[in-house]
Parts: sequence; C-alpha cells; structure tokens
Amino acid sequence: MKVIPVAVIGKGGVGRAVVAALLRSQSRAQARGVNLFVNAIAGHDGIAVSREGWPEASLVKFAAGAGDWRDLTGVRVCTSHAELVAAIGAVTRPGQIVVDVSAAESAAWHLDWLRRGWHVVTANKKPLTASRESYEAIMAASRQVDGPRHRHEATCGAGLPIISTIADLLAAGDEIQEISAAASGTLGFVFSACQAGRTFAAAVAEAKLRGYTEPEPRDDLSGKDVARKALILARLLGWSMELSDIPVDDLVPKSLQSGSVENFLAGLPTASGYIDERVSAAAKNGQVLRYLATVGPAGITVGLREVPRESPLGGLAGTENMFVVRSRYYDSAPLVIRGPGAGATVTAVGILSDIFRIINL
Amino acid sequence: MKVIPVAVIGKGGVGRAVVAALLRSQSRAQARGVNLFVNAIAGHDGIAVSREGWPEASLVKFAAGAGDWRDLTGVRVCTSHAELVAAIGAVTRPGQIVVDVSAAESAAWHLDWLRRGWHVVTANKKPLTASRESYEAIMAASRQVDGPRHRHEATCGAGLPIISTIADLLAAGDEIQEISAAASGTLGFVFSACQAGRTFAAAVAEAKLRGYTEPEPRDDLSGKDVARKALILARLLGWSMELSDIPVDDLVPKSLQSGSVENFLAGLPTASGYIDERVSAAAKNGQVLRYLATVGPAGITVGLREVPRESPLGGLAGTENMFVVRSRYYDSAPLVIRGPGAGATVTAVGILSDIFRIINL
Repeated sequence: MKVIPVAVIGKGGVGRAVVAALLRSQSRAQARGVNLFVNAIAGHDGIAVSREGWPEASLVKFAAGAGDWRDLTGVRVCTSHAELVAAIGAVTRPGQIVVDVSAAESAAWHLDWLRRGWHVVTANKKPLTASRESYEAIMAASRQVDGPRHRHEATCGAGLPIISTIADLLAAGDEIQEISAAASGTLGFVFSACQAGRTFAAAVAEAKLRGYTEPEPRDDLSGKDVARKALILARLLGWSMELSDIPVDDLVPKSLQSGSVENFLAGLPTASGYIDERVSAAAKNGQVLRYLATVGPAGITVGLREVPRESPLGGLAGTENMFVVRSRYYDSAPLVIRGPGAGATVTAVGILSDIFRIINL
Repeated sequence: MKVIPVAVIGKGGVGRAVVAALLRSQSRAQARGVNLFVNAIAGHDGIAVSREGWPEASLVKFAAGAGDWRDLTGVRVCTSHAELVAAIGAVTRPGQIVVDVSAAESAAWHLDWLRRGWHVVTANKKPLTASRESYEAIMAASRQVDGPRHRHEATCGAGLPIISTIADLLAAGDEIQEISAAASGTLGFVFSACQAGRTFAAAVAEAKLRGYTEPEPRDDLSGKDVARKALILARLLGWSMELSDIPVDDLVPKSLQSGSVENFLAGLPTASGYIDERVSAAAKNGQVLRYLATVGPAGITVGLREVPRESPLGGLAGTENMFVVRSRYYDSAPLVIRGPGAGATVTAVGILSDIFRIINL
C-alpha cells in the first residue's frame, strides 16, 4: 500500500467537504493500492499537522463542521508562507499533494510547492489568473517528466468535467473554436430569480442569505470571478492574455462600489432599477438575462446577455452552470456540459478527480 | 522520448479516424515525452505490421480513405486471433496499446492482450457485454498495479466524457442514484426526423442513406446496441447483470425480423404504421418520442418513451446524445452531458482520451 499525504490549504466549507470526500473515497483509493490521508489542514491563522494523519473520528468531526478546528492535534500558529511550508515539510512524505481551496493570491506558493516536488490541486482561481509569466512557470513545472503535477479541474464548473474534457480534445488534435459558458452559480441564481419575478436587489439579498455569494457579494457581482474562469479557459487554449485585458460587465452600481456590505445591500433596491428594466425589456421579447463568458474568435467577452427563454441557456435554473464547446470535431452540434457549478460538495468532486488522476500516475 | 506503439484492430471509418487523430495529436504527445506510432492495422481478413511505423504520407492516405489498406508495407493474411497476436507480437515493444474499433466478439481477445502486458482501449462494446465472468476478469487484469490498463470511454457517447466522469464521481465517494440517457445517435436521428413529420420508415431509410445506421439497420432498431451501453454503465456502477437480463423494446416489426436488408426496408412502410401512430399520439400531448436507457432504482429499462417536447431530452436534434446523472452529490440538479454521440471522428476523440490517460501513467 502506497501512502500519499494530502495537505488541505483552506478550512472553510470547501476544505471540510474535501476532507469528507477523502474519507468517503478511502476504499476506492485502497483498491488502487493507495492510502490517502490528510497530514495538514491550514487556514490564514494557523495549521494543524500530523505525520500519521488523525483518527477518522477527529476528521469526521472537522468535516461535519462540528467543534473547532483546533480540536485536531499538532496545531501551530502560522501566518506566513515560510511557516506554512516548514510545518508541512516537517510531516511530509514522497507523493505529497497540496490542495488549495483558499482564496489567497497563491501563484508564488504554487510554484514553490511544485519545486519542492509536491503535487498541487487547486480550486482557487487566483494562482492561475495572476501574470502570464507565473502561469507559464507553473505549467512548465507541471510538465516535467516524473515531476510533480499541477491540476485545476475545480476552478471551472466545480465538479463538472470541464478542464479535463477540453484538455482531452486538445490532446486528440482538436481545434477549439468557441467556448461559451454560464459559469457563475451565484449570478445564475440571481438571474433565475429575476426571471421568476424578483427584483435584482431582492435576488441578491436571497443569494446572500442562502450562502451562494462570497461574504462580500460585490466580488460575485463585479463579474471578476467569471473573468477569471474565462481567462483559465483561454490560457488552456494557449492564449496569451492577462486578467486586465478582459472587459468585464460590472453589475455593482457605480454609487455602491465602496462602503460596507450592509450599506451596499441597503442601497441596492434604489440603485439597481436599471437592471430590473433590462430584465423586463428582455421578457417582453421572450428573452431572459444570463451572465455569460465567451472565449472565441472575437476574443473574451464577459457580461450580461439576452438569450431566448426556450434555449438551453435560458432553461438553466438555480446555481446551474453550462459550458458549450464548439470545435473542429464538435461542429455539427456542440459538446455541452451542464449541472450545479458551485457549492462545497461538488467542488470537492473536482478536487478528488484531480487527486485520483495524480495517484493514477 | 518514450516510444509507444499502437495497434488498431478494425480498419473501417473509426479505425481511419483513430489514425487521423493520432497523426494530429503527435505534437501534444511529444510535448509529454512520448512518441506514439501505429505499428499494426488489422481487419477481419489481414493485418499490416511495421516495427518502426509507416511513413506519415502512407498513414495520411489510409486515414483519408484514399487507396487501399494493402498499400501499407508488411501486410499479411490473418484470419484467426492466434495469427493476429503473432503478427503484433513480432513487432511489439514495451507499452503496446491495442485499440479495438472492430465489431468482433472479442472479450477473450481483450483478456489475452492484457495478459501479454498490452494496454487495451476499446470502442467495441461486445467485449464488455459478454458474460459477467469475462467482464470481471478483464477489470481484474486492468487493476493490477504496474500492469496494463483497459479503458472504454468511447463505448458510451463516443467522445463525450461519460465513463470517466462517472468513474470520477465513484472515486470521489459519490453514490449514483440514476443514469438516464438518450444513448443512440441513430435512433435519435430517426425520432427527430419523425418529430419533423417524416414517417418512421422514411426516417430509417434516410438514416441508412446518410450512413448513420449499421450496414444491417435492424442492429440499431432492435435496441440491443442501447442495451449494451446501459449494461456497460450498470457494470461500472458495480451491478451484476447479463445482457439477457435487460428487457429491450425492439422496434423491428415482427413480420420483418428475418429476411434481407432490402426486403426489410421495402416492407417497413406498411409494417411500421403502429410506430407512426405512437408519434402522432405523443405530438397531440406536446410530447415527442425518444429511445431511452435508464439505470436506476427500478433496474435497467431500455425503450421508446414519451418526453415533453420542451424538455432537454425533447430538444435533442440529429444524432445528439444526452446522459443525465443523478447522485448523492448531484441531487439539487443532475449532471448533464450532451453532444454528438456517434460518428467516426468523435469516437476517435474517446479513443485518444483513453490513449492519453494511459501514456500519462
């Protein structure tokens, strides 16, 4: 039995879901001759480490969100990247996998982890949407024969098999003509709610209440999260671009760009009437609004678009995502992947898929 | 550069498309330190073999369907499995991949190839839908650590990522509740044409004319091809079943079960009125007919069903397939994969995806 340690960077909902999925996948991994165990769980303020892994009961409790993370043994304060790698380095073994489910600007960290021979699996989009140079350095490190691998399935569509499918098409000699995507579960929920008659402000408030938005809902409404996904897809296609090259349709009213979250939510009903007017105007023509990203002959576009209510994109409900790929091979009709594209559990599916691809090496 | 030989068993349209895709994927493979080359092309009547591979120009000509397969060097008569493996064995090297795009009853062959240490990639469903014992023997051989691998992405949905996605979900600890699928490009085309007003007989004749059916169109209409796909999905979920356990809705009228293809096509207009009546009856209720397979709590069902015209399944056109997966993780909305599910080029995509998964090992 080969023993593979997994360090989880980020101890919010997704980090807990990854630990839960690792526990549930143990028998599958063991059937492949691999014993996967968590040897580190880190947040912005500290890290718990263990050379042999923790008792299953402790991890079950952590995964369920019961009790405090500090209940685990081996907790130490850790507020810098140097402390983080020292802590993991003290308990690491060959085959170390580091899972980044944080929201940190961690491009330099990823490169450092790879150079230490650690595999990296990320749901965090920031390290892949920093400068082109850092992206290329990460990919080059991941391409070394017998070297560690960098994988990022969960950055687009959470657990939906987007990155791997496009990579497979490219490997098979395909030429991608266009990828269009409803890639934000949060904005999908908001505009489905608008379609059902709610105002934009009420839909945003409901999304916040249900936990579908970031703690700062403007991070979702700015469209920057969708732009990051579009950039990750474009870079996968070999395009040389920076995040700042992508024009983004910002849904945060100008008057509410700054100030507290409370003031933003309080001001939204009066400031966002123009979005409600767009919803009504679209409805009169049998259209609905969807926040879409397109990577294609016209470059990258990210913004609010009218689509027919009866179309596949118009039929999306709740937090569903849809990715539509047109290519040389898929020319008569596109390849379409649809499903919930946000949420801790389905994000963990994407992480686990990547972990299994690495342990299959 | 690691040299990996690929033997292609089946020299029809899919075999040619696999060779074409291998040629187009050369630079991607070389970027991963691998040189993929075709060292054998076999049909039911003979095999061409070459230790070093053929000149690119010869393969391009073969892939384009121009000239005769016998233009390749190293052709020998080969009408038995013993002769086939002897011919490949004479030119093999470590890492041999055998691609089965034939329609042979090749379960015993697959097991023999695996036992010789050859990897197997199949679009042919028959070796996976023979007895449960032979399926389990193939899977057990493929599970050996450092042993050869057996992969079959192209058996369901051609190039659509169905098998790998379901395998990833299972690996991540998911529990699949139901897979429902429009899994036949041929029957999809036929019932889309019926929906557009053609009679069943005219739709079948057109599908035959366009090359969407098997040479014997009753092989498609019998539903057995869909039943094989359903069995492959069920076995992936760990179900113990035989093909004969699956009740199938046979669309070949009883009076036309035997006799020549010509007589079948000539007799179909008068014998298939009852299917046209089902199409009309469905249309009166806003429904359309789709030939569906379901693997779920009620077991496996395969047959013609009414679905709402405005539903995702009702919206399928031409040869499009759709696979809908409901699971513990995908419970709020299903994971849906849609796209062309038949045709030589997209089948080659599935084959190449599997080849790349093997060379990534």
